Amino acid sequence: MWTTVRHRVWRVLNVDQAGGRLGYYLNVALGTLIFLNIAGIAAETVPWMTGRFGAMLTAVEYLSVAVFSAEYVLRLWTCVEDPRYGHWASGRVRYALGPMMLIDLAAIAPFYLPWMGVNLLGLRAFRLLRLLRLLKLGRYSEALRTMGRVLRRKRFELASTALLAIVLLVVAASLLHAAEGAVQPDRFGTIPDSMWWAVVTMTTVGYGDVYPVTALGRFLGSIVAFLGIGLFALPTGILGAGFLEETNRKTKARLNQRNCPHCGGELGP
Amino acid sequence: MWTTVRHRVWRVLNVDQAGGRLGYYLNVALGTLIFLNIAGIAAETVPWMTGRFGAMLTAVEYLSVAVFSAEYVLRLWTCVEDPRYGHWASGRVRYALGPMMLIDLAAIAPFYLPWMGVNLLGLRAFRLLRLLRLLKLGRYSEALRTMGRVLRRKRFELASTALLAIVLLVVAASLLHAAEGAVQPDRFGTIPDSMWWAVVTMTTVGYGDVYPVTALGRFLGSIVAFLGIGLFALPTGILGAGFLEETNRKTKARLNQRNCPHCGGELGP
Amino acid sequence: MWTTVRHRVWRVLNVDQAGGRLGYYLNVALGTLIFLNIAGIAAETVPWMTGRFGAMLTAVEYLSVAVFSAEYVLRLWTCVEDPRYGHWASGRVRYALGPMMLIDLAAIAPFYLPWMGVNLLGLRAFRLLRLLRLLKLGRYSEALRTMGRVLRRKRFELASTALLAIVLLVVAASLLHAAEGAVQPDRFGTIPDSMWWAVVTMTTVGYGDVYPVTALGRFLGSIVAFLGIGLFALPTGILGAGFLEETNRKTKARLNQRNCPHCGGELGP
Amino acid sequence: MWTTVRHRVWRVLNVDQAGGRLGYYLNVALGTLIFLNIAGIAAETVPWMTGRFGAMLTAVEYLSVAVFSAEYVLRLWTCVEDPRYGHWASGRVRYALGPMMLIDLAAIAPFYLPWMGVNLLGLRAFRLLRLLRLLKLGRYSEALRTMGRVLRRKRFELASTALLAIVLLVVAASLLHAAEGAVQPDRFGTIPDSMWWAVVTMTTVGYGDVYPVTALGRFLGSIVAFLGIGLFALPTGILGAGFLEETNRKTKARLNQRNCPHCGGELGP
Repeated sequence: MWTTVRHRVWRVLNVDQAGGRLGYYLNVALGTLIFLNIAGIAAETVPWMTGRFGAMLTAVEYLSVAVFSAEYVLRLWTCVEDPRYGHWASGRVRYALGPMMLIDLAAIAPFYLPWMGVNLLGLRAFRLLRLLRLLKLGRYSEALRTMGRVLRRKRFELASTALLAIVLLVVAASLLHAAEGAVQPDRFGTIPDSMWWAVVTMTTVGYGDVYPVTALGRFLGSIVAFLGIGLFALPTGILGAGFLEETNRKTKARLNQRNCPHCGGELGP
Repeated sequence: MWTTVRHRVWRVLNVDQAGGRLGYYLNVALGTLIFLNIAGIAAETVPWMTGRFGAMLTAVEYLSVAVFSAEYVLRLWTCVEDPRYGHWASGRVRYALGPMMLIDLAAIAPFYLPWMGVNLLGLRAFRLLRLLRLLKLGRYSEALRTMGRVLRRKRFELASTALLAIVLLVVAASLLHAAEGAVQPDRFGTIPDSMWWAVVTMTTVGYGDVYPVTALGRFLGSIVAFLGIGLFALPTGILGAGFLEETNRKTKARLNQRNCPHCGGELGP
Repeated sequence: MWTTVRHRVWRVLNVDQAGGRLGYYLNVALGTLIFLNIAGIAAETVPWMTGRFGAMLTAVEYLSVAVFSAEYVLRLWTCVEDPRYGHWASGRVRYALGPMMLIDLAAIAPFYLPWMGVNLLGLRAFRLLRLLRLLKLGRYSEALRTMGRVLRRKRFELASTALLAIVLLVVAASLLHAAEGAVQPDRFGTIPDSMWWAVVTMTTVGYGDVYPVTALGRFLGSIVAFLGIGLFALPTGILGAGFLEETNRKTKARLNQRNCPHCGGELGP
Repeated sequence: MWTTVRHRVWRVLNVDQAGGRLGYYLNVALGTLIFLNIAGIAAETVPWMTGRFGAMLTAVEYLSVAVFSAEYVLRLWTCVEDPRYGHWASGRVRYALGPMMLIDLAAIAPFYLPWMGVNLLGLRAFRLLRLLRLLKLGRYSEALRTMGRVLRRKRFELASTALLAIVLLVVAASLLHAAEGAVQPDRFGTIPDSMWWAVVTMTTVGYGDVYPVTALGRFLGSIVAFLGIGLFALPTGILGAGFLEETNRKTKARLNQRNCPHCGGELGP
């Protein structure tokens, strides 16, 4: 009897594999709870909100931890239904070490750990990672898998762009330190300080807390700002090409299975 | 006789279906009036302009409402000429509930409602939606339909990007709250406050009203700023691929009227 | 004899049509003079530079006008060598009304006009348009023609994006005026003022002179800032698709002329 | 015997050509040293760090120069193993004039030059260029070669974009100087000053140190800011198309090893 219950619970929890109405609603409910929980964490940092809604926030907190803990235990109990994690001990350990289960553990662990005093808030931030769970919901899965495939296939190009960005960052910071260091010693006096300017400029954020004032500094700063455009253009171009290749691949895969409807001969790619 | 007039008015009002010179000029005139009306709404918020051009602004207002009301009534009267809305009662109701007609109603309603006192300005803002009407003008239709198709086909990818952005937003706000909350309690003291910083940084707006000052805060802020580039690259790449697929689809639809190279039969789409 | 000279001058001036070494060097020399001239115009606005290099700047000015005037007259004299502008009077008039010749005229006219007193600087700004001439140099032509074709083919999509941007601009300005107008009357007190904020935010410039401070204003501002990303993504996606279509078109045009090297049969598109 | 040693050293140093475990580890070690060295250069500009870690920083500096010098000498000694640089004298000279070897020389030269007094920091910045070496590591090579090919093939389009950007920059600066020069003489009083505003606006950095305040200046500034979006869209579109063409080229090169469907012969590229 327990095996049947376990199998049913497993199917409900893993909506994308076995599915069913109940599993879908459960997922939506868990997603809503995650959002509520995050709103609660944010609200706890606002004094007047803790003053007024303190009890409610605590209730949400306790409820979340209870539900998430139950979900975690149930997942661990039922995972052996999946043939890949079939062994009662080693299967469960491997399942518990999967990225999603580690995120789930990180989301509830701070509540149970006794030494959560100081880092409480920091640790609870892990609960935010549960938001990633939402991405597994229904049809979003396919879109995210596509994104993941594109990012993975283009990882060398993207990493090269990042490396070029770091080189530009260091060179820009050194040049501006040389040009502006004497005039604005508190802002460009050290290369690490200049790096903050370089980041703010290359990403086109431009807070306005640090900017060059000398003619040379402005000239160099202008070149860095224009090169910063490349920082947007390169990854965008790479990803754009990647998304299109992905679609082409799918289209070709479909086309390659087609035969001519008249003579039955293969049409080829 | 009335039926003939109704048919003619219907053709003039729906330039994209039946067209004609008169319909085109009417559309341009209505578009100009919409722009005038919006300029008037904006001008009414400027004290010295209401002082000097008060009467003119009121005239534009009255004229607009009169013309738009007339257009609305005429549309409702003539819509039965369209076979889809042929029934004199149920057809008109369904037509009136279409998005474009609701926008038109929202544009004139505030003038007639008696309780428009306080929310006058807010309600009148709906008139701005009439600008969307302009998009129906002539050849722009095809371009907008293309855009709409691309956005619809890529809605899951774009929604996934939005979800990733929200996750990044919440995580960034929590981290910066932890890093800067003690140093700048009025800017990073609560997570909602930190979120404002995260939005301003991730979208690369960077007003400069909020920015990290500690070394840790700047380091985390730099990472958020660089990840913000992905916020531009992902949707751009997705949309770029979408626009190209759309063109390819059209080209293929044309090319697919070719025949099979083996038997000469039509291959179909 | 004059006809031969005229033909030769015409060939030298129109390097892209008949070309030759001399024409290339002349173009480079004119390009350099344009840059010098622009640098001179910029330098004249800096007091200490006019004080020190005043005579030199005047010399550059006189030299530029003399050379550009000579070029203009020579172009007008020789244009009849081009069969399209063959008639001695009507051909020359049509040639003089071409965009490039109008730019050239605008570049030298301010010097000869007697009423150049007040608007001197503004009119001389037209000289900057001569920079466009540079684009005609050598191989850049092809790249610019490609760009022009892409922009022309996608003009409806780009115009639709611009229209959407204007709608978003007006709506955003109205909303922020409603949300912040009472708190910051000098910055959001009128819709035109709010529009300045909307432009600065949607283009992600973010000077920091105007920004929302209320919770509602920040919430609405965040949405506008995120929608501003679409303002970058849409035209970029459209242009990216356009550039690729352009290349595909060229490749197909080439491929469509190929036959199978073995059997001589056409390979088709 | 020396020849055998030389051959072995050459193979270890040129991991991408002959490779081997040792060469890979050496490359990683050199990469780490480069990063350490750059961190050291940055740390030397921070007073409290030189005070505390002064000796360590000097040690890193001496070690780096020693290792980089040894590498340079070994490369020069072994390069004749490469058939392209086979001649003992002319081959080595040509090898030493390659871009990578010049970067290496620039990285160690400042240490040996006696006149490094004042420009010490500026010259040492060349060491940063060694970061480019990292790009040669392992599989990143292919990604960077792809990038290089795309940038080279699209260089005319990108240069045209840059030229358009310069024209826009100059025109924008002149217009804003005319509109705001009288009101903010310290910020828009000269065209070079206005150019700084134009750069900050067109790249959407927007520090907030310079911005228009008059109605005309804001109107013109808005147009410049919107045109600045094109500054992002054009290169991104160009690069996106370039990356996709690159992939298509590779795919076609593979596909073209297929045979003609009519006669079965190889079709070639």
